[in-house]
Amino acid sequence: MINPVSTNISQNKSDLSQIFEPISLELSVLDKKLIENLSSSNAVLNNITRYIIESGGKRLRPAVTFLIAKALNKGFLPQDHFQVGIALEMIHTATLIHDDVIDEAETRRGNRTLHKIWNDKVAIAAGDYLLAKALARLASINNNLVIDLFARIMGEICEGEIEQDAQYYNFINLDQYIEKSARKTAKLFVAGAESSAILTSGADNLTIKAAREYAFNFGIAFQIVDDILNFTSNAEEFGKPVGIDLLNGILTAPVIFALEEYEEKQDFVLKNLIQNKFKTESDFNLALDLVLNSGGIEKSKQLAINYAEIAKNSLSYFDDNPYKSSLLNLVSFILERKF
Amino acid sequence: MINPVSTNISQNKSDLSQIFEPISLELSVLDKKLIENLSSSNAVLNNITRYIIESGGKRLRPAVTFLIAKALNKGFLPQDHFQVGIALEMIHTATLIHDDVIDEAETRRGNRTLHKIWNDKVAIAAGDYLLAKALARLASINNNLVIDLFARIMGEICEGEIEQDAQYYNFINLDQYIEKSARKTAKLFVAGAESSAILTSGADNLTIKAAREYAFNFGIAFQIVDDILNFTSNAEEFGKPVGIDLLNGILTAPVIFALEEYEEKQDFVLKNLIQNKFKTESDFNLALDLVLNSGGIEKSKQLAINYAEIAKNSLSYFDDNPYKSSLLNLVSFILERKF
Repeated sequence: MINPVSTNISQNKSDLSQIFEPISLELSVLDKKLIENLSSSNAVLNNITRYIIESGGKRLRPAVTFLIAKALNKGFLPQDHFQVGIALEMIHTATLIHDDVIDEAETRRGNRTLHKIWNDKVAIAAGDYLLAKALARLASINNNLVIDLFARIMGEICEGEIEQDAQYYNFINLDQYIEKSARKTAKLFVAGAESSAILTSGADNLTIKAAREYAFNFGIAFQIVDDILNFTSNAEEFGKPVGIDLLNGILTAPVIFALEEYEEKQDFVLKNLIQNKFKTESDFNLALDLVLNSGGIEKSKQLAINYAEIAKNSLSYFDDNPYKSSLLNLVSFILERKF
Repeated sequence: MINPVSTNISQNKSDLSQIFEPISLELSVLDKKLIENLSSSNAVLNNITRYIIESGGKRLRPAVTFLIAKALNKGFLPQDHFQVGIALEMIHTATLIHDDVIDEAETRRGNRTLHKIWNDKVAIAAGDYLLAKALARLASINNNLVIDLFARIMGEICEGEIEQDAQYYNFINLDQYIEKSARKTAKLFVAGAESSAILTSGADNLTIKAAREYAFNFGIAFQIVDDILNFTSNAEEFGKPVGIDLLNGILTAPVIFALEEYEEKQDFVLKNLIQNKFKTESDFNLALDLVLNSGGIEKSKQLAINYAEIAKNSLSYFDDNPYKSSLLNLVSFILERKF
């Protein structure tokens, strides 16, 4: 008899839909429920929410939540866990909408941003509407620990946003970068995964810890890869201009490693260019080349792999099943993703 | 022996601190707790929240919540009701901050707006931070009905914001105006008052209904007075330029009544000026004069009085006590307020 776990692991890890196969039904219901829950008597708002939901995304956050839920509940996805997934996607979408207003972004995932089609007012209010609707989903779960966890993590995410604002062109160290990535990305994965474990009857503290650590380390690895892709990927595929973070003074892993490397050689060109906030386009292009020609990208990849390994190891506390396999494969998938 | 209720009613109703005397201790604790609950390891965020809380406001929303709580709990303010008050003020403040970003407002209550001192990014994130912190307060209450009520009402407020965006320079009727005022103002009062009754052990459905109807009608009256003051008050005291709503195409009670009156006389000057969105400053000044010289202001006052009366009558279901007296006096106070 073939062991379903090893079969699953041997599948092509780069195929996300294959990884999500054990929750494919739940993910298709998720999209329907998102539209249903966001429906309003206001036609404009309905257009907006439909636009948001249909412009997609990979639904990574609910997917991780659902996989953990099914891994811990013998392949069953309880209603409360499903609600966590909906809330999570709403909150994630709200933060994207508010971020786009803040960044004056023109496009997101290849589509025009909400505040460009409508306006800033509508975009800010639509983000708040999504937060209110997420709150309604969380309320329906009726579990104080879960609401408290979400409240705490949402607070930390906002703190991170404000901290970021004070850090433009600042030479942060690796610890500060990880802290920032936690708030920007990992913590929302944690909110879903930890809630999923909390809501599983009989789940002990070590199970909850395992879910939290998987999500945290997965989220950090995901963010590091995102920051690498901002330097290495094709702008069209990635949906953001190459090096845009650096241009905006947001220093990520590849730059932090590059700076370290050059400073060891007493080479302060990159540092000076950043300090001077790229006075010209050629200043910026030179800085970009310096990052790409350093070991920064490679070291960042290794850093992502380290976090990915911790994420995988966290799951050793879970029983083997196809959902755990998917969680493991998902880690490999995000390490190899190209956009 | 002097009856404390009638003594209270005979006091000068225009003195808000006198009306709030039975909850003065709770209101001063509220300010401390607001700062405490919003404190962050981030220095910028601490400055922001301190700035927000210290630039004040009348704390009307928590005050109504506290008065209802004490009226129903024999003069005692339970911890859960206090948390509702904190959450309410945080949500109200968040909506003001987001509104100021949207409206590009320079000042609020005579102080420079957050997004002007810092920037839009920080202001949007600070608003979201307040919403997250409000959620934490609501979570601490651990009552599903309350969280659900807040979620629903926050959703309606956002729907209202988006609806407003489609209504600039639109000739809305009085029903639409009341609906808009409900979402803009009255519903948040309802969230606090209704929660206050829900959280009172032994409060029956009629008590909950009474609290809701007081808050709703009080909120509508409050908004109508606000809309009148936008035409009649001194810009400096009121903190907004005279007629700014009309200039922005937001049609409120005085304009709706004025339009009705002129149309009956087959006079379409005001209507045409609005339809043409005030091409010149003299267009706008003429429109302003037409509103002020109509019966619009007087009819709006009467409308506010009608809602105020319903608010007062709603409380007939409450036992007489100093807190009920304050709730009644508060209605009179907002009718007479000058800014």
